[in-house]
Amino acid sequence: MDFQLDEAVAVLERTPDTLRALLGGLPEAWITANEGPETFSAFDNVCHLIHGERTDWIPRARIILAQGGSRRFQSYDRFAQAGESAGKSLPELLDEFARRRAENVATLRGWHLTDTELALEAEHPELGVVTLRQLLATWVAHDLGHLAQTARVMAKRYREAVGPWRRYLPVLDRR
Amino acid sequence: MDFQLDEAVAVLERTPDTLRALLGGLPEAWITANEGPETFSAFDNVCHLIHGERTDWIPRARIILAQGGSRRFQSYDRFAQAGESAGKSLPELLDEFARRRAENVATLRGWHLTDTELALEAEHPELGVVTLRQLLATWVAHDLGHLAQTARVMAKRYREAVGPWRRYLPVLDRR
Repeated sequence: MDFQLDEAVAVLERTPDTLRALLGGLPEAWITANEGPETFSAFDNVCHLIHGERTDWIPRARIILAQGGSRRFQSYDRFAQAGESAGKSLPELLDEFARRRAENVATLRGWHLTDTELALEAEHPELGVVTLRQLLATWVAHDLGHLAQTARVMAKRYREAVGPWRRYLPVLDRR
Repeated sequence: MDFQLDEAVAVLERTPDTLRALLGGLPEAWITANEGPETFSAFDNVCHLIHGERTDWIPRARIILAQGGSRRFQSYDRFAQAGESAGKSLPELLDEFARRRAENVATLRGWHLTDTELALEAEHPELGVVTLRQLLATWVAHDLGHLAQTARVMAKRYREAVGPWRRYLPVLDRR
């Protein structure tokens, strides 16, 4: 499937409002439920997305676009967000995510990227050569993956409560 | 995990706005993409949720609460919504889902269900004896499952576009 920048942006700019609609004002039990040790709750998913806004997508895009001598990304720590978000409430984090995402989408739009720029390359520490187009497609798929994860984690709170319907609800037993 | 009616309602009443935030105004390609023959697109997920509002959750709850002679549910046709939604646009369907869901949540709240009522039983044609509590928990888990499915189906549009990042994004290869 072809990557189109305007289609990608359309998803990226909707994620904050989607998470706010899903999670804003929900009882705490929905926000903090997870799938076991070292798994993400809905709260953790929001923290993780904020961390990506700070350290991953736009910073990496800048490295690619600069085409400087060092085009090797830093390794990305999937659990690094814990410290940054300590003590913050979900409403604060939803606001922070919306603000950072809006800034980053504005930056992305402002670049008016050409096909030539989208094909520029950098080196991922584990994956090897990657392009700016692949990075931006990953940003979108990563958003949607964490939205799916958030919904799945929440659904699992009712794994037992649904009784015999469990066999019709694959989301309850999916990892 | 214990089922609490107010927590369940909190999710049910958020689903229409969540889908509107995710899907409203998106380019058509995101709405119609699916995972192959006889799989649901984002559009199909909305149609399916509307069908449930019309024929499944509240109608079945009424059968249980009536405690009449026939407490056996009709079989539920997962693909029956195609005809009902033919020719409608996504904005129309998002509005219809929001309206029907709001009506059904108002009905549910208006019942002021007791624990005794939540324990009332009916007979599911394939699953056997089920309770009202299980039906309502299933309504919630079903919403979240279809939200997760919608996000997953959309993410898969970029399965190839993400290049080597695919191995870090399990959502792209999940069924």
